[in-house]
Amino acid sequence: MSSEFGRNIRVSVFGQSHGRAIGVLIDGLPAGELVDEEELAAFMARRRPGKDALSTARHEADIPIFLSGVKDGRTCGSPLCAVIENEDMRSSDYDELLDSPRPGHADYTAWVKWGGLADMRGGGHFSGRLTAPLCIAGGISKQILARRDIHVGAHLAEVAGIPDDVFPLSPTPELFRQVAEKTFPVLKDAAGENMKSAILKAAEVGDSVGGVIECAAIGLPSGLGEPMFEGVESQLARALFGIPAVKGVEFGAGFTSARLTGSQNNDLFFVEDNNIRTKTNHCGGILGGITNGMPLMLRTAIKPTPSIALPQQTVSLSRRESVELVIKGRHDPCIAHRVVPVIEAVTACVLLDMMFDRLENFTQE
Amino acid sequence: MSSEFGRNIRVSVFGQSHGRAIGVLIDGLPAGELVDEEELAAFMARRRPGKDALSTARHEADIPIFLSGVKDGRTCGSPLCAVIENEDMRSSDYDELLDSPRPGHADYTAWVKWGGLADMRGGGHFSGRLTAPLCIAGGISKQILARRDIHVGAHLAEVAGIPDDVFPLSPTPELFRQVAEKTFPVLKDAAGENMKSAILKAAEVGDSVGGVIECAAIGLPSGLGEPMFEGVESQLARALFGIPAVKGVEFGAGFTSARLTGSQNNDLFFVEDNNIRTKTNHCGGILGGITNGMPLMLRTAIKPTPSIALPQQTVSLSRRESVELVIKGRHDPCIAHRVVPVIEAVTACVLLDMMFDRLENFTQE
Amino acid sequence: MSSEFGRNIRVSVFGQSHGRAIGVLIDGLPAGELVDEEELAAFMARRRPGKDALSTARHEADIPIFLSGVKDGRTCGSPLCAVIENEDMRSSDYDELLDSPRPGHADYTAWVKWGGLADMRGGGHFSGRLTAPLCIAGGISKQILARRDIHVGAHLAEVAGIPDDVFPLSPTPELFRQVAEKTFPVLKDAAGENMKSAILKAAEVGDSVGGVIECAAIGLPSGLGEPMFEGVESQLARALFGIPAVKGVEFGAGFTSARLTGSQNNDLFFVEDNNIRTKTNHCGGILGGITNGMPLMLRTAIKPTPSIALPQQTVSLSRRESVELVIKGRHDPCIAHRVVPVIEAVTACVLLDMMFDRLENFTQE
Amino acid sequence: MSSEFGRNIRVSVFGQSHGRAIGVLIDGLPAGELVDEEELAAFMARRRPGKDALSTARHEADIPIFLSGVKDGRTCGSPLCAVIENEDMRSSDYDELLDSPRPGHADYTAWVKWGGLADMRGGGHFSGRLTAPLCIAGGISKQILARRDIHVGAHLAEVAGIPDDVFPLSPTPELFRQVAEKTFPVLKDAAGENMKSAILKAAEVGDSVGGVIECAAIGLPSGLGEPMFEGVESQLARALFGIPAVKGVEFGAGFTSARLTGSQNNDLFFVEDNNIRTKTNHCGGILGGITNGMPLMLRTAIKPTPSIALPQQTVSLSRRESVELVIKGRHDPCIAHRVVPVIEAVTACVLLDMMFDRLENFTQE
Repeated sequence: MSSEFGRNIRVSVFGQSHGRAIGVLIDGLPAGELVDEEELAAFMARRRPGKDALSTARHEADIPIFLSGVKDGRTCGSPLCAVIENEDMRSSDYDELLDSPRPGHADYTAWVKWGGLADMRGGGHFSGRLTAPLCIAGGISKQILARRDIHVGAHLAEVAGIPDDVFPLSPTPELFRQVAEKTFPVLKDAAGENMKSAILKAAEVGDSVGGVIECAAIGLPSGLGEPMFEGVESQLARALFGIPAVKGVEFGAGFTSARLTGSQNNDLFFVEDNNIRTKTNHCGGILGGITNGMPLMLRTAIKPTPSIALPQQTVSLSRRESVELVIKGRHDPCIAHRVVPVIEAVTACVLLDMMFDRLENFTQE
Repeated sequence: MSSEFGRNIRVSVFGQSHGRAIGVLIDGLPAGELVDEEELAAFMARRRPGKDALSTARHEADIPIFLSGVKDGRTCGSPLCAVIENEDMRSSDYDELLDSPRPGHADYTAWVKWGGLADMRGGGHFSGRLTAPLCIAGGISKQILARRDIHVGAHLAEVAGIPDDVFPLSPTPELFRQVAEKTFPVLKDAAGENMKSAILKAAEVGDSVGGVIECAAIGLPSGLGEPMFEGVESQLARALFGIPAVKGVEFGAGFTSARLTGSQNNDLFFVEDNNIRTKTNHCGGILGGITNGMPLMLRTAIKPTPSIALPQQTVSLSRRESVELVIKGRHDPCIAHRVVPVIEAVTACVLLDMMFDRLENFTQE
Repeated sequence: MSSEFGRNIRVSVFGQSHGRAIGVLIDGLPAGELVDEEELAAFMARRRPGKDALSTARHEADIPIFLSGVKDGRTCGSPLCAVIENEDMRSSDYDELLDSPRPGHADYTAWVKWGGLADMRGGGHFSGRLTAPLCIAGGISKQILARRDIHVGAHLAEVAGIPDDVFPLSPTPELFRQVAEKTFPVLKDAAGENMKSAILKAAEVGDSVGGVIECAAIGLPSGLGEPMFEGVESQLARALFGIPAVKGVEFGAGFTSARLTGSQNNDLFFVEDNNIRTKTNHCGGILGGITNGMPLMLRTAIKPTPSIALPQQTVSLSRRESVELVIKGRHDPCIAHRVVPVIEAVTACVLLDMMFDRLENFTQE
Repeated sequence: MSSEFGRNIRVSVFGQSHGRAIGVLIDGLPAGELVDEEELAAFMARRRPGKDALSTARHEADIPIFLSGVKDGRTCGSPLCAVIENEDMRSSDYDELLDSPRPGHADYTAWVKWGGLADMRGGGHFSGRLTAPLCIAGGISKQILARRDIHVGAHLAEVAGIPDDVFPLSPTPELFRQVAEKTFPVLKDAAGENMKSAILKAAEVGDSVGGVIECAAIGLPSGLGEPMFEGVESQLARALFGIPAVKGVEFGAGFTSARLTGSQNNDLFFVEDNNIRTKTNHCGGILGGITNGMPLMLRTAIKPTPSIALPQQTVSLSRRESVELVIKGRHDPCIAHRVVPVIEAVTACVLLDMMFDRLENFTQE
């Protein structure tokens, strides 16, 4: 149950960082949907490491192999399983960590939970590497949603305190496309350059930085979501907090709304082309857990990469005494930019699941 | 499914604001647990309106009647149902709202979802009144947890931008008790006075304010939670976003951690009395979705009350044209202070659920 | 979780036999559905005891009180809670049973599970009395299905080895109505008279008898159900085995099909009025877990009432020695005829749940 | 959701008969459990076809490849994924079936549900071949249960109306082992010979036969299961009906109990070696949905193989007219004997899931 989300379209992730393969099982997809492997590869490339000095040197081809659920390039109604075989692993880097948990990682809590029984090489099942299969599920979900004119896009809203622009009130698919094609996913390139400098500066001193990601979904029907605990916010938050390094989730104005007055924060209704819209979108497109037809807007906080080159104090689990730890191996001085497509992916999966009873098997095209 | 949360101990809320009764069904509680009705009444009194000028004048006794699941004052293993009968309803206040959705409320989205078929008097099932049965479930959960030396406490961390102190690294049950006994739940009373002034000032001009609530849980075993989507953060966030007016949830340093470096944000391990602890708690007691034995720390953003006395622009649903709306009736200029026990309640329910397989039927006492 | 079934439309039963009230919570019903209380009362009367010498003398009015989810006689989209207040309880009858578990009842297993902490008066939460709230949920579900021309009917197929006729290949709503109006729900009244004689003969010697119930659903769309573990059979069987006294469930020819050859058992397809139908219905309308458009057919085995007047051997739990038990109080010499509407009720709830994404909010009448 | 069962230990099956691979994902297994691949292979060999004239000539090595969840031969706490690559497929055999649904198969219902979009070659996801990954999950579950002295065994209770002996009141692990080692899994070999003759006789005339499987579990703690819809019967039945060809499930005396009197059917308690036991086991070890410490006993009805060589009448879906169908290819004249380990497998998975909160990570050997 732990590595699974969704109610009608369920996404289950499996694999350990240094195991034989990682993968995803998706149960409940409509049949007849084209799986455009080229488009999927382009989407997955956005989270792949090793592109420049900003990220780890680990190289993974990350090519999904479809074991089931796809026939002649289309979904066929039965559960879809796709795997990525692991390669380029250096498990020896992790040998000494078994007794000395890395600060900020799940090493310690995994040791408490499973004793030494977990496979924690490379972070095991907790590794950011598990976001690759999430991107397979999300990439397919994005394709299916796009055929219904629903689009999900995201950008780096902030790195090391340096802000990007914010999404406009009504983002367009074209805007999402433009950001997705950039090697560094920001709206304002000048802000992106500053962010990159901050990342490289942190890297130079063996440190790391975090960031904030803004994500939007456009084209959603109004009336999506159920009251209270099956509301859009509840379902998205549950899934988003499953992504490693996410420590905060807010919708619309979020924590900022707590500082506004009611008259500032309320989004006033008006009629435009016979459609009911709101002048602002502080609620992020959700009222009472249900979509109101305005763009869905959310932000997630990504903590700085816990793996840093600087020496850190930790403990020896066996000797119960303090030790100094120096983490070897390759690490990202920032992961926030690589998490951008992962946020899109998980958001798309949840929205597709919530759209479940409005989808039909899709034969045309 | 919509108004239910929990996996093994499930909490289902029912009722409409102006219906016959509201209530809660809890399935899966251990047997033999004392339900201290006096303590429960004291807990529920913390969210009750009508105490002073800070909140609505609606008076509700809010006395839970136990229909099932309790025998001779103790849980008996079968599902517990408790109801509160509604009284003091003025449905006529809401008559004209049916065609003119209130900004910031679920009126519009409920209309989209159910046409005119929903019972939206007083906000219907979306009303903050539904948090009363949540407090029944939470109050009982808190009692059960307290017998295992697990305590949940919360305070108003911020109202209208005015900050309270923050919880210390290791809050005590005594601190939780002190805050709970205050009529205005802050750590620093001077801050509370400033908050109250801000609330009254907003009320004077027919406006409202929001706030932030900090919640902590102490005494939790380490190793609680499952990887990824059944992590502590995922399960808590899903439930917390089901509370009306919550627009953001963060754990530990949350959005602030996005601005720290890795060396600042990582919580360093050390040994104290043979226990492994961390010097800081930026992770909020959770690593990889699993508790690490440090206090669980979370914050939620509460938006300003959407019901304000100021005239607001909205639309006539039938005529598809703009209208000006003046909301009559009684409303809270701030609800954040009344939401404090609700956050505690929902947090306690989720933690009890996660503790499920570590609880035994409890006969001693 | 224990007393709940359904995926999108969830039915949760609560209450103990001698507690304050019993009831049901239904989450997920479409809005705008008329709840015909008179029709519901007529349905519930079919399971009510005390009608004649065939059943217990306990008298219960069994009038449901709707606490939520219904406004002006129609469902309003929020969870529906209905309760029945208990009356006419004689708990003293059960006092001595606490140490001497009744054979065939859940007394012993409840004692193992909860020690003496469960409320087992009158069978507690395990009592057949809990089938009354199931009939509330089922009666409402039947009304909602009937508006979509889907009808569920059942009859006593066998009592004490005496068989009734079997349903024809294509039962009609009229046939269901006729059986439902009989005080003894059989197709062939002569068989019913023989069954009644057998029941009374068992009662005379302080014994009891069991039976088999055949249930059918007509009007279901083809294509309902999901492969494997969410198939129609899986979902129905899970719910049906939750009814006290059910010890077997079979679909179509069921155990009989195990003795047929493939050429006998296969249902051959043919075209009739451009519809594809089968000449026989040994599969009970389900192939691969999915409906094929033929009537759904199932049978359940109901064990003889475990409460009998004859002395029985049991043990003293405290003294760990054999004792002879004579059960006092009032008991049904057969419950199978009273379970007939319960089987209909649970079947209707499950089918409504499976129809979930094909229902719309229903405004017309 | 469709191909998944279990609450805490979830088993998801994927793959199509003629797809690239079939497999299983198991989430929630305790860590540190040895996966004895040799023992697993021996278990899986029991369902494998192609051993003699009694079954299909399709040859599959059926060797599971572990992609995740196992490290150094032991479970490591993260989801376990195992796959079997498909080989020896003759898809051309199925080409003409696309327009002519085979009687007794899911061809027609799959066509209704997904149009022509499903991959129905070889029965697709509905194929009995999907029981191979179920046996991987079940084989591992059986090993884990056996370490807690819980054993699951089954035999062919009946084929073509020819009965085997029944399990004794208290079967032993040794008895289970003996049956498991036989090429034809019966208690009484003479009965087995008669069954085999009946199967071969059916095969000679191009027909097929069905059977009944009796399954038992010993060593289960008492007190397992939850009231009503999470009872042992509900959980097992839901999973068992997910196995292709299962059309009936009964516990203990099942449908036979419907013909007994209460005094015959009630299992009388007595004390033996200070343990409370029953003299008979008509309830199959379950009272009120909860185990009573006696062996769990269940029976399932397996319909005759729908694929037969005899010509059958069906319809052309495109032309809406009757056609005669002759199924080519290789088929089992009986599958009941091959389903025996599958029943064991699914039963073991469900029981392991229900044991979830009584398992600990298992480090000793």
